[in-house]
Amino acid sequence: MTKGSTLQISCAQFEPRIGELERNVATSLSLIASAADAGSDLIVLPELCNSGYVLASRQEAFELSEDAATGPSIAAWVKAAAERNVYLVAGFLERDGVRLYNSAIVVGPDGPVGTYRKNHLWDAEALYFERGDLGFPVFHTSFGRLGVLICYDGWFPEAWRLLALQGADLVCVPTNWVPMEKQPDGLPAMANVLCMGAAHSNSMVVAACDRVGMERGQPFIGQSLIVDHNGWPIAGPASHCETEMITAVCDLSQARRQRNWNSFNQVMRDRRTDLYGEMLGTTARPNWY
Amino acid sequence: MTKGSTLQISCAQFEPRIGELERNVATSLSLIASAADAGSDLIVLPELCNSGYVLASRQEAFELSEDAATGPSIAAWVKAAAERNVYLVAGFLERDGVRLYNSAIVVGPDGPVGTYRKNHLWDAEALYFERGDLGFPVFHTSFGRLGVLICYDGWFPEAWRLLALQGADLVCVPTNWVPMEKQPDGLPAMANVLCMGAAHSNSMVVAACDRVGMERGQPFIGQSLIVDHNGWPIAGPASHCETEMITAVCDLSQARRQRNWNSFNQVMRDRRTDLYGEMLGTTARPNWY
Repeated sequence: MTKGSTLQISCAQFEPRIGELERNVATSLSLIASAADAGSDLIVLPELCNSGYVLASRQEAFELSEDAATGPSIAAWVKAAAERNVYLVAGFLERDGVRLYNSAIVVGPDGPVGTYRKNHLWDAEALYFERGDLGFPVFHTSFGRLGVLICYDGWFPEAWRLLALQGADLVCVPTNWVPMEKQPDGLPAMANVLCMGAAHSNSMVVAACDRVGMERGQPFIGQSLIVDHNGWPIAGPASHCETEMITAVCDLSQARRQRNWNSFNQVMRDRRTDLYGEMLGTTARPNWY
Repeated sequence: MTKGSTLQISCAQFEPRIGELERNVATSLSLIASAADAGSDLIVLPELCNSGYVLASRQEAFELSEDAATGPSIAAWVKAAAERNVYLVAGFLERDGVRLYNSAIVVGPDGPVGTYRKNHLWDAEALYFERGDLGFPVFHTSFGRLGVLICYDGWFPEAWRLLALQGADLVCVPTNWVPMEKQPDGLPAMANVLCMGAAHSNSMVVAACDRVGMERGQPFIGQSLIVDHNGWPIAGPASHCETEMITAVCDLSQARRQRNWNSFNQVMRDRRTDLYGEMLGTTARPNWY
């Protein structure tokens, strides 16, 4: 762990099955073990990787949910992180009282570090989940500062920027990407394009772990990837349909140092906050979009 | 012009030569004529396409500058737009009193529509130009609403978003893209990645016109492209080194309609302005980036 400023990251792309909590967590533990055997310090798992994604009812959603403090999936991940001396970022179906969230937990060798709740809900998720209410937290770890986004969050440049502005040098993205219309041959998936652009524009490392397979008629696209702070893939994109581990070594200190692009430009300081005004960040907005 | 809601756009990628104002404008007029002959309604030209880019001194910059209202390059473009019944977006070296700007003018069949001044200056531009002071204007034309960004502006997701929030369905990008470090083979240029991601995330058409060639030791990368509101190229990327016209037909009404992605999601309305706070848009920002 924490070999100087370098960090080995793995994304464990696999196929959760809807409702099969024990099987899904067991699969994740097996992949965590294999990434740890390979020397990884941080392992990212997909969105809702303990429960599966395509929920049929609120009742089913509640049955698959667990509390971030006491849930059995979390307990299993906490044990694995301690035993293997690794960090994990894992998507799970969170229950808080009678509210459900599409969440991800960050776990370190010493236990849970924090939870992120997906802020931008996609499609029928709105039927079951509440929108995130914890903002865009940046978590402090022994290797540096880490933010989390989940799937559709990545479509909002504001989200990446807010993490960078708060000091994140790495963003982990548990995701369940679905196919986009009109994806051309020979170009990266749009989900990958957005990760590359965000990594570059903010000089941050991005580690996105997708799922694969078909669930209740909904296909997922795999293509997990890790991009460096220049925006270029250093691992993946993984298979569009198979379980696959991708692994890369990155240097978070370079992400921070290289925000200085030349004698004049540092991308975060070049922002024209004098011009952006309040429109980007407040509810004072025009009504014509 | 304005065939229903469709619009034919051309980007006239060419090689301006530093200081050769008359030759550069003559080249642009020839390309405008050829795009108009091919039926284009809107023609985008590169950044600083009348003057060239790599300035050697403030004195040279002043000698190559002109007033947006009275300059000879502008007059030539206004005449061409009227004669051919087209819109033009052209980068030029603007002088306003004793201040210089890296600007682009939007010209229609009835004359100048407005000027945009580059808000995010790149590298040594800061020695000669003032930062833009006209905000992110959206220009109204007979075919719809149009915004302009210039080169490094495109590295700021805030800029694209502000244009979309103000109703732009098309962003024209006169540019002079320079090579990026570590560009891998087989992937689009990062400048293209940023255009694709911005077009997709905001459901806007993007027409980016780059220059080619080498100027005082500085190479430029060409690869002009037009992307539809899904974020996929519909023309280009053009050659990395040759003069080349790229042309595409787009439907701006689809860009607007298809911001509704499903029964639950419209990307602009899904923004969590309640969470973004004022950090994105104001000078109240942390000091650790």
